[in-house]
Amino acid sequence: MIANPAIAAVLVDWGTSRLRLWAVDHDGTVLGEARSGEGMGATEPRAFEGILEHHLVELGAGPQVPVMMCGMVGSRQGWQEAPYVEVPARLDTIIERAQPVSGTPRHVRILPGIADRSLETPDVMRSEETQLLGLGRIAGDRADGLVCMPGTHAKWVWMDDGATQVSGFATALTGDLFAALSGASVLRHSLSGGDGLDGAAFDAAVRAAIAEPAQMLMRLFAIRSRALLHGADAAQASATLSGTIIGQDIAGALARFGKPERLTLVGGGTLGALYARALDLVGIATDVFDGEVLARAGLSTAAGRIWPDMFGATPHAAASG
Amino acid sequence: MIANPAIAAVLVDWGTSRLRLWAVDHDGTVLGEARSGEGMGATEPRAFEGILEHHLVELGAGPQVPVMMCGMVGSRQGWQEAPYVEVPARLDTIIERAQPVSGTPRHVRILPGIADRSLETPDVMRSEETQLLGLGRIAGDRADGLVCMPGTHAKWVWMDDGATQVSGFATALTGDLFAALSGASVLRHSLSGGDGLDGAAFDAAVRAAIAEPAQMLMRLFAIRSRALLHGADAAQASATLSGTIIGQDIAGALARFGKPERLTLVGGGTLGALYARALDLVGIATDVFDGEVLARAGLSTAAGRIWPDMFGATPHAAASG
Repeated sequence: MIANPAIAAVLVDWGTSRLRLWAVDHDGTVLGEARSGEGMGATEPRAFEGILEHHLVELGAGPQVPVMMCGMVGSRQGWQEAPYVEVPARLDTIIERAQPVSGTPRHVRILPGIADRSLETPDVMRSEETQLLGLGRIAGDRADGLVCMPGTHAKWVWMDDGATQVSGFATALTGDLFAALSGASVLRHSLSGGDGLDGAAFDAAVRAAIAEPAQMLMRLFAIRSRALLHGADAAQASATLSGTIIGQDIAGALARFGKPERLTLVGGGTLGALYARALDLVGIATDVFDGEVLARAGLSTAAGRIWPDMFGATPHAAASG
Repeated sequence: MIANPAIAAVLVDWGTSRLRLWAVDHDGTVLGEARSGEGMGATEPRAFEGILEHHLVELGAGPQVPVMMCGMVGSRQGWQEAPYVEVPARLDTIIERAQPVSGTPRHVRILPGIADRSLETPDVMRSEETQLLGLGRIAGDRADGLVCMPGTHAKWVWMDDGATQVSGFATALTGDLFAALSGASVLRHSLSGGDGLDGAAFDAAVRAAIAEPAQMLMRLFAIRSRALLHGADAAQASATLSGTIIGQDIAGALARFGKPERLTLVGGGTLGALYARALDLVGIATDVFDGEVLARAGLSTAAGRIWPDMFGATPHAAASG
């Protein structure tokens, strides 16, 4: 494929199970993208460069085009470690510590994650910090306060100083717990075949979890009993499991960070809609942003700062300055 | 095998995954026992009689010997359904409703389970009611109040009236949750190879769960972060997971039933010891009973009441009258 001279940079989110690339021009406009299942978790250390170059050639990015990456590719088990920045973490510091990847002729950098190394609440993130960088650029001080980032491992982040700093965060085992219980516990008998949301069951489960978070394990077993005794169907059981876990997650965040009137919700899909619904039930309004848009904005901001000459300085410098 | 004329009855606990039989004499003394993996869950409806008769012949129980059973063998998917008795459930009623099994020349009965059919807290038990019957016979009114029965699905039971009645109970998804998270979540990477109890980690996790049950999902993910950031070993991670789940279970029971000064703990093994340790941390003393001893006592009490002539009336009538 012939190199496209309009490509100014390639932005890459390389997670444990997924690889996503966007070729962008000097204004950050997306000229091409690629998605693949070549996640970092299944990639041998020496294979990273070849996989990346393959996709860059397909996208038409010449050898001079720089690549800004985030995600687990920067973990110790990834391509090259980008050591965590510690909380309180200024997002400028994330950019300053963008790790140059050695051993390749191309300009490639990996943004570091953020860690809380305290003994009481140890925690780590990789890739969410890049979304937060994008959030700060797009939303500015509207994003100060609590940010909810649902997912396999939901992140709750406290941002301040005009959304330029992560002062604390906590990760909850949410989607992972849902999957483990759905696949490997007695609840799997009650859930199989569930389809569509039973809104009433979801709402009741959220309310119960927030009202009495101590009784989570009892409410989980009650999903099975309700199916046995009252013939609850799979959709009802799935909605109850979902509401129980999301409600517990919200209860934990409110206990940890206090209850805000509104918060920033990162996630535009089905899961994001469930969180928005659950948060509304407890009187918390949400400003919703799409995670992929934020990731691109964060990677693009970092690229513009690191390579101002190669990657059209003006709009990014203005937006980030 | 030649029939042993001293055998007065055979007592059977037939659960989802295990079958246990005890041949007893007129005094309830165990003359022989058998254990097998022929659980109800893997048994076709028509196979129950053959499996039972095979073990009875091996034990030397003649065709006139009656058999008292409990457990999932009495569920709808079992040999013959013994419909649940509803709470508040008198344990005498459990015996009165011992379901005769039809289609076999032998006297065989299955003790029913107990159900809470309320919409708010639906719940079921099968086999624990038989242990509770034995508990009432052995401990009498010492067992009034809260009873803790740890296991794959832990039961918390409120007994009253001299431990002759179950007025309420709740089941928690405990051991099942531990197994699901150990096998099918990100925590499996941190837990593998753990051996022995890290008492300090267990105690800290129990205290944290009881102090702030809302934050359970965050503390679960912190097990992973602690391994990554602080090099916590597998034994520490396993103890933290165990303490988190047991602590949450206890927090739920105290929220549901109130906090007693002491309670009855059914379970003499490793799991029972962990519960006793965790309960002690929150100032609750425990009277410990072995679950298998209680199951035999309950089955034996029921057999003595149902078949007074065949199964030495005197000691059992005295104990239960």
